Amino acid sequence: MNRETEELGEFELIGRFFTRGGRAAQGAEPGADGVLLGIGDDAALLRVPPNSDLVAAVDTIVAGRHFLDDADAEAIGHRALAVNLSDLAAMGATPAWATLALTLPRADARWLTDFSRGLFALADRYEVALVGGDTSRGALTISLQLLGFVPVGSALRRGGGRAGDLLAVTGSLGDAGAGLALAQGRIQCPDAVATAALRRRFDYPTPRVEFGRLARDLASAAMDLSDGLVADLPKLAHASRLQARVDVGRLPLSPALRTLGLPDADIFHWALGAGDDYELLLALPREHRGRLEAAAVRCGVELSVIGELVPGAGVHWTRHGAPYVPSATGYDHFR
Amino acid sequence: MNRETEELGEFELIGRFFTRGGRAAQGAEPGADGVLLGIGDDAALLRVPPNSDLVAAVDTIVAGRHFLDDADAEAIGHRALAVNLSDLAAMGATPAWATLALTLPRADARWLTDFSRGLFALADRYEVALVGGDTSRGALTISLQLLGFVPVGSALRRGGGRAGDLLAVTGSLGDAGAGLALAQGRIQCPDAVATAALRRRFDYPTPRVEFGRLARDLASAAMDLSDGLVADLPKLAHASRLQARVDVGRLPLSPALRTLGLPDADIFHWALGAGDDYELLLALPREHRGRLEAAAVRCGVELSVIGELVPGAGVHWTRHGAPYVPSATGYDHFR
Repeated sequence: MNRETEELGEFELIGRFFTRGGRAAQGAEPGADGVLLGIGDDAALLRVPPNSDLVAAVDTIVAGRHFLDDADAEAIGHRALAVNLSDLAAMGATPAWATLALTLPRADARWLTDFSRGLFALADRYEVALVGGDTSRGALTISLQLLGFVPVGSALRRGGGRAGDLLAVTGSLGDAGAGLALAQGRIQCPDAVATAALRRRFDYPTPRVEFGRLARDLASAAMDLSDGLVADLPKLAHASRLQARVDVGRLPLSPALRTLGLPDADIFHWALGAGDDYELLLALPREHRGRLEAAAVRCGVELSVIGELVPGAGVHWTRHGAPYVPSATGYDHFR
Repeated sequence: MNRETEELGEFELIGRFFTRGGRAAQGAEPGADGVLLGIGDDAALLRVPPNSDLVAAVDTIVAGRHFLDDADAEAIGHRALAVNLSDLAAMGATPAWATLALTLPRADARWLTDFSRGLFALADRYEVALVGGDTSRGALTISLQLLGFVPVGSALRRGGGRAGDLLAVTGSLGDAGAGLALAQGRIQCPDAVATAALRRRFDYPTPRVEFGRLARDLASAAMDLSDGLVADLPKLAHASRLQARVDVGRLPLSPALRTLGLPDADIFHWALGAGDDYELLLALPREHRGRLEAAAVRCGVELSVIGELVPGAGVHWTRHGAPYVPSATGYDHFR
């Protein structure tokens, strides 16, 4: 029997691809990773560090919705964790433990090998332990729940922005949207390097975990841009009970994105409406700008001021000093 | 527009069906439910009680696998939480917080009304707060992650059994398997009361949360019977490095199940192989038997001794003193 294409039983599947000998203790004291009991019992048993609040996020990715039907399993494994790491980054949290709910049409060993490689490569980078999960047969649907922690009372929230705060975003916007359009053949680009860079931004989003932690005591509010700036910025403004004013001319655009040579309307459409960049949006008191910029440099992340929070409501978009009406609307799974 | 059948947007869906004004504080101190920040930010923010270990479980239910394609949405909502409550019950944990990953073919208001009613009715009974979630469009797949806690070091595990311990199960076995067979028309029963009772056992499983908590300091090991006794008992025996000896004549069978008048082979097939009863299997030191039986009476749960743990490995089944070979194999999603 070909071990690479066979169908596996549920328990063999879990044992072979998702259970790792690890740092987890099985006794009364947890391992260095806080795990008292990982995969293999009815539930995981974990110890939250003293004087910490627990942070919990969950995100589902579905074939044909969040990734292409023919996506590499390794990229899918990466994405399942990355989208949740991005949520924890937005809270300034330290990620710690994940549980995985994996629904698969069939238990294909090759697919699982690649998927788990992508998942664990990212998990190792951020010292996340996979402590539990559940496998079922059905349409490919991957839900990952991520737990982490912050020192008591220090989590970044959407609603902490104050009038006068600057609005800033990490990295560059629109790359993942362009990468998806390239992957789908909706646009072409003669520059192979730029094409690869943009596709990689879609396939392997980089959660801003280190920067989120450093921003925790400097920013006043944060959220991740998982639905696109045009959809997410109003949420931060609303939660902070302020108006956001943004100059779209200040949106950070990558050299690869500019290489496409497309009209501004297309570029802004992705930069404002595509949610797959997984960058952070932050509100920051002006007096912390220098320290936050230094933190960004330490993490190797760009930080761009794009506007400010002022008294009022909603979002006021401008370009070259004139009002601007975004064409993008952001992502909604049921519209 | 008919508000009962319309399609809803993602955020309206969350706001209307899954966000409840509640006891959650939005400030620096948590509400009585330990919630600092619930649905509406990038992640939930929770405070674990002092001197507690965190317990985390996740279970997915899929249409056509864990419930019938035409199942009532209310029963599906109940099941999504019940299967996870059962995992926490098996650890002796107090459930506290849930996150929901809901993948739906369409956002149907009537379905969501019924689903959320079933989910919240059970959540309210056990004081579980829904603190986060994610909705996606796709094949109906529901993953729920449940968090709870136990006093430090006190969680029940599968591997704590000792030679000489008695093996016991809560409630009755096989009802849910028969209820499913009735629902699918594979068997008939002229007794409407028994039919309704058995179907209800499949549609609305009762997690043994209160009993699990009371058993925490009395039992030496526990697990929930989600894959059927024939599949689950070997796991407890293996984890405890002992042999389990069970007399199938001692399996607790309900009056409704006996009413069917079916051959013993059918009855034992369900009692041993069907995993939907969500009863608890426990190992208990003989000297604790009386106190555990008293605890069961307090919870209104039957407790039946079915065998014992002895030195050795595997499971030794008997009936009327002779070896017995179960026909059931337990549930495996990928076999």
